[in-house]
Amino acid sequence: MSLLVVGSVAFDALETPFGKVERTLGGAATYFAVAASYFTRVNLVGVVGDDFTEKDAAIFHGRRIDIAGLERAAGKTFFWAGRYSDNLNDRTTLATELNVFAAFNPRLPESYRHSSYIFLANIDPTLQRSVLQQVRRKPKLVALDTMNYWIERTPAELRETLRHTQVLMINDAETRQLSSEHNLLRAARHIFTLGPRTLVIKRGEYGAMMVHHNSVFCVPAFPLEEVHDPTGAGDSFAGGFMGYLASAGRVSDATLRRAMVYGSVMGSFAVERFGLERLRHVRPREVTARARHFWRLTHFAL
Amino acid sequence: MSLLVVGSVAFDALETPFGKVERTLGGAATYFAVAASYFTRVNLVGVVGDDFTEKDAAIFHGRRIDIAGLERAAGKTFFWAGRYSDNLNDRTTLATELNVFAAFNPRLPESYRHSSYIFLANIDPTLQRSVLQQVRRKPKLVALDTMNYWIERTPAELRETLRHTQVLMINDAETRQLSSEHNLLRAARHIFTLGPRTLVIKRGEYGAMMVHHNSVFCVPAFPLEEVHDPTGAGDSFAGGFMGYLASAGRVSDATLRRAMVYGSVMGSFAVERFGLERLRHVRPREVTARARHFWRLTHFAL
Repeated sequence: MSLLVVGSVAFDALETPFGKVERTLGGAATYFAVAASYFTRVNLVGVVGDDFTEKDAAIFHGRRIDIAGLERAAGKTFFWAGRYSDNLNDRTTLATELNVFAAFNPRLPESYRHSSYIFLANIDPTLQRSVLQQVRRKPKLVALDTMNYWIERTPAELRETLRHTQVLMINDAETRQLSSEHNLLRAARHIFTLGPRTLVIKRGEYGAMMVHHNSVFCVPAFPLEEVHDPTGAGDSFAGGFMGYLASAGRVSDATLRRAMVYGSVMGSFAVERFGLERLRHVRPREVTARARHFWRLTHFAL
Repeated sequence: MSLLVVGSVAFDALETPFGKVERTLGGAATYFAVAASYFTRVNLVGVVGDDFTEKDAAIFHGRRIDIAGLERAAGKTFFWAGRYSDNLNDRTTLATELNVFAAFNPRLPESYRHSSYIFLANIDPTLQRSVLQQVRRKPKLVALDTMNYWIERTPAELRETLRHTQVLMINDAETRQLSSEHNLLRAARHIFTLGPRTLVIKRGEYGAMMVHHNSVFCVPAFPLEEVHDPTGAGDSFAGGFMGYLASAGRVSDATLRRAMVYGSVMGSFAVERFGLERLRHVRPREVTARARHFWRLTHFAL
């Protein structure tokens, strides 16, 4: 089934205890699309500046990623610079230059307008809604990411967009902030009154938790000896999650659980190297092998 | 198989966002013994003062807990007072009165000296070792808990005791402190050079992780709508873990995984009410039901 993502395509400058890169391709839509393309065909909507070269676009070539919706605007591409703490749990933003992203107004090419699975990466909730308005028929599943900035500054717009969303994918802190509830089960119940029927809570080194009706599912983070760069982990998770669901073509408790696992698989590859270095070179059989490893990591018989 | 625990029996004053109790029975050995007694017979070694009444001792009656090793000394019982933060993740110690515990010198009754499974709760590592010296034959499994205080102040004594330990059960922070490694897999490898061959890392609301040779197993914390009092969660976990293993009489990858689940089950009951209120009233069939609930919480098929 067709999968649409709208979000940022960016250049990142990254500093972690394992090293430093001055300029590497990043952005939520990029990580998402590369991760999801292991499972299904992805339609990407975003914007880049005139500094985005053919060499940069190579990340999308040879994969099932359609970039007809990747607009090229005059000016520079979105740039983000960040530094991670020694334990990788905290990060400091050193620079955010929106550039062409400041005037981003997502426009769906005709060929994207029948997408059944949609991921609205973390952007202005009004833009997220404008994407849904351009889709011709009711999508099968809309998933949304957001952050403290939109929860605080555009709460009404976010609520309106959430009404049209089935899956909300955020972290612990955002869950607590959005619901004003510390307890995650009560937070989920509150969020279900806003529109979503599934809440996926991303917990970094502690994995992810899904609340769906009365069912809760937890998956740990993959234990790695070296995490070089956490950038893009959440969007790669979302890519694996939505990519798997779109490929399955069915949303059930069983497919949602597998989606959580494939999300965790793609997130775990993303953090192994800087930027997209590891994710772009993953082989399909490594995806399968790591999913089986997740099974061994959590399996028990009573 | 016989299970021995040595550790504190105490009175606690507790304050959490859900309320306050002035004086309730607690202590590591108490939580451990009550939790483990759902699975097997427990031999308890500890000390109480003359303020410890028959009414207090009632917690041990009608269960498979032998208190021949619970010494009664002149003076007051160990007293601890603590207050938890609003999110229950931090606690402040308001008072620690060691009282009779200050001169605690564990002595095993003759009937305990053939125990095959031993849990050394968090006390002075020299006292932990003295317990092992009193055991007649080599135990099948020794598990040990410790804390930052002993890691910092008695590192040589702790290392000596660790040499005789197979399972180390500590939290994330203690794991990192003991190994000087932030990464938990590398921390585990370091700890394996000290004696233990299994590391169980207790992660509070994030569950627990076990590293055993090259196998890693993760279990989430049970999602509860209300956590009233985290006191004793770790010791109840240890009780479920060791109680199950002793009842199985066999240490294998499969039994260790189940032990992790039963540990999490008992820890989850412990935190539902203040002190031992919930744990002491758990029915055996509730233990089984919650273990099955853990299975649904983590199960997926690829």
